Amino acid sequence: MATGVMGEFELIKRYFARPEIAQIQGQYTSSILGIGDDCALFDIPPDMQLAQSLDTLVEGVHFPGECDPFALGYRALAVSLSDLAAMGAEPHSFTLGLTLPRVSELWLKEFSEGLAQLAQRFKIPLIGGDTTKGPLTLSLQVQGLVPKGQALLRSGARPGDLICITGTLGDAAGALPSVLSGETPETCGDESLKYLLHRYWYPSPRLFAGQWLRQAGATSALDISDGLLGDLGHILEASNVGAEIEPDLVPRSAALDRYHDQDTALTLALTGGDDYELCFTIPRQLAQTLPAKLSDGCRITCIGQINDESGIVRDPQGNLLSKKAYTHF
Amino acid sequence: MATGVMGEFELIKRYFARPEIAQIQGQYTSSILGIGDDCALFDIPPDMQLAQSLDTLVEGVHFPGECDPFALGYRALAVSLSDLAAMGAEPHSFTLGLTLPRVSELWLKEFSEGLAQLAQRFKIPLIGGDTTKGPLTLSLQVQGLVPKGQALLRSGARPGDLICITGTLGDAAGALPSVLSGETPETCGDESLKYLLHRYWYPSPRLFAGQWLRQAGATSALDISDGLLGDLGHILEASNVGAEIEPDLVPRSAALDRYHDQDTALTLALTGGDDYELCFTIPRQLAQTLPAKLSDGCRITCIGQINDESGIVRDPQGNLLSKKAYTHF
Repeated sequence: MATGVMGEFELIKRYFARPEIAQIQGQYTSSILGIGDDCALFDIPPDMQLAQSLDTLVEGVHFPGECDPFALGYRALAVSLSDLAAMGAEPHSFTLGLTLPRVSELWLKEFSEGLAQLAQRFKIPLIGGDTTKGPLTLSLQVQGLVPKGQALLRSGARPGDLICITGTLGDAAGALPSVLSGETPETCGDESLKYLLHRYWYPSPRLFAGQWLRQAGATSALDISDGLLGDLGHILEASNVGAEIEPDLVPRSAALDRYHDQDTALTLALTGGDDYELCFTIPRQLAQTLPAKLSDGCRITCIGQINDESGIVRDPQGNLLSKKAYTHF
Repeated sequence: MATGVMGEFELIKRYFARPEIAQIQGQYTSSILGIGDDCALFDIPPDMQLAQSLDTLVEGVHFPGECDPFALGYRALAVSLSDLAAMGAEPHSFTLGLTLPRVSELWLKEFSEGLAQLAQRFKIPLIGGDTTKGPLTLSLQVQGLVPKGQALLRSGARPGDLICITGTLGDAAGALPSVLSGETPETCGDESLKYLLHRYWYPSPRLFAGQWLRQAGATSALDISDGLLGDLGHILEASNVGAEIEPDLVPRSAALDRYHDQDTALTLALTGGDDYELCFTIPRQLAQTLPAKLSDGCRITCIGQINDESGIVRDPQGNLLSKKAYTHF
C-alpha cells in the first residue's frame, strides 16, 4: 500500500482503518490480512472464483460538488456492489483510492459512516487503499466470490429466454434534475420526489437477487447503470441475440408515475440510468419457478423475450427501440 | 465494470482492451475472464494467496503536468509492482481506473505503450478498469500470488537480523528538481543527470529479488517509496524493534556522487524517496547465502542490523538518525 504524501493523510488512513470498516467479519474474512503492509493478502476457497469490479467516481461528473458525504460514501459502495450482484457473487472485500482536495474531519467522518453502513450490511471489509491530495475522486474496487464456472455472464442469453428486471426502473433518472440542483431526500418536501431522490442516493445493490438467480438457472445478467435499452444491448451483443420487450411491462414505481407524466415516466424507465437494478434472462421453462417477489422483498418482472435478431430491441409491434429516447405512440 | 460516461471513452476502453495489454499470457492467466463483463473473474491455486496493492497518482501531486505519457504509464505500473515485490509475490494481473480531462489519441497511445512495455516484461495482464472524464488521475491495483503463509511482511524483523538494501538509493530524489522542471532522460545532455532521471521515470520493480528473498529466508521487507529512514521505520514499528545502520554503507550510484556533493548525496540516499528498491532483514546466520548480486544483476548491500530499541534508528556512534534530513559530521 502506498504511503500518503502528507502527514494529515496518515490521519485519514487511520480513519479508514477503524474496525467498523476495516474489520467487518464476513463469511470469508478470516484469511484476510488487511490494511497495514505493502499489500493486502488473502486466499480463497479452492472451489470459488474471485469477481472484481473497479469504478471511478469524479466530483462534477458522477456526483454533484458539495454533496452529502454520507450519501456519497453509501452510493459509491452500492454502485460497485451492484457489479458483484450482476455476477451472482457474494461480497468478499473492497479497496478504496480516495483523492481529496483538503482534509475536513467532518467530511471524512460522514463519508466513512456512509461507507461503513453499507459495508456492515453486506459484511464486506475495506482491506486496503490509498489516500492522496487532489481533485475529489473515488476509485473503489469490490471483490466477491462465486462458485467456479457459475458466475452470471452477459454472454449466456439464448433465443426463447425470458427477459426480466428486479425492482423498478427510471426512479433515479427521474430525480436527476433535483439531484443536480442539490436537493436531498432529507430536505425534500414532496413525498414522490423524496422517494426518487432516495433511489438515486441510496440504491439497493441486488446481491441477494443475483445469488438467487445464479442458483435458479438464469442464463445472463447485468446491472442497469446506463439505462435498460443501452444495457440490455450489452447482453444482446455478448450473447449474439436480439430482444423483444413490451415497454408498458417495464416496472415503474408509483412515485415515478406521480411525479412525471406518463410519457416521461415510460422514457425514464426505458432509458434512465442509475437505478442499479438487475436485468437478467432465464429459460422459459423455468418461468414458473420465478416468484413475483424474492424473500428480501425484491420484485421480479418479466418484460419480454430473447430472439435471434442479433443486437436489435423491438416492441411487440415490431418498432425498433432506441436507447437514446423512447416515444410512446 | 462501469461504463464510461462518454462515447469517446468507449474508444479508450477498446484501446486498453488490446491484446498487447489485456491478453498477456502469464503463469496464472489461463483461468482469467478479463475485460468485458460486469466483473473480471479468476481463481487462484489452492496453495497460494492473493496479494493486492492500490496506488493513486494525481497530476501535479505525484507527477508533473504535461509529462511524457509513455514514462507515466511505465512508472505508474512500476510503482505498483514494487509493492508486490516487497511481499515476494509473483505478478498475476492489474486493474486501472483512469480519469482524463480530454481524449488525445496520441496521449493514449503512448501511455498505453508505456504500460504495455512493463506489463509484458513481467507478464501481468490488465483485466479490468474504468475510464472517466475529470482531472488526470490514475488508480492502479496490482495483484500477485504468493505461497500461503510465506509472504514477506513488515512485522518479521528480529534483533540481530541484518538490514539490507537492493540496488542504490537517492537516485530518483537526486533527479527530482529536474523532473519538476520538465527535464527527461531523452532530452538531458548531462550523463549523470540522465541516469538519475531514468531512475526516477523508469524504476525497476524488484520482483525477482523479492521472490528470491522470500525463498532465501528474509524475515521482513518493504519497498522504499518515501526514503530509507522513514520506510525502515515502518518495519521497526511493525516488528517492535530498532535499528543501527551505517550511513556510509547505504549504496549510492556513481552518478549520484558525481552529480551531487557528498553530503547531499548521503542525505538523498538516506531520506530520498521514489527509488522503489527493497529494504529487507535476514537472519545473520543466512548472511553467507546472500550474493553481492542476484542473477538478474540486482545488487544486495548490508547496511546495518536490527536491535531491540523499539522504533529507533541510530548510527554506530549512537547518533539518532531522523527521516527528515541527515547531517554528516
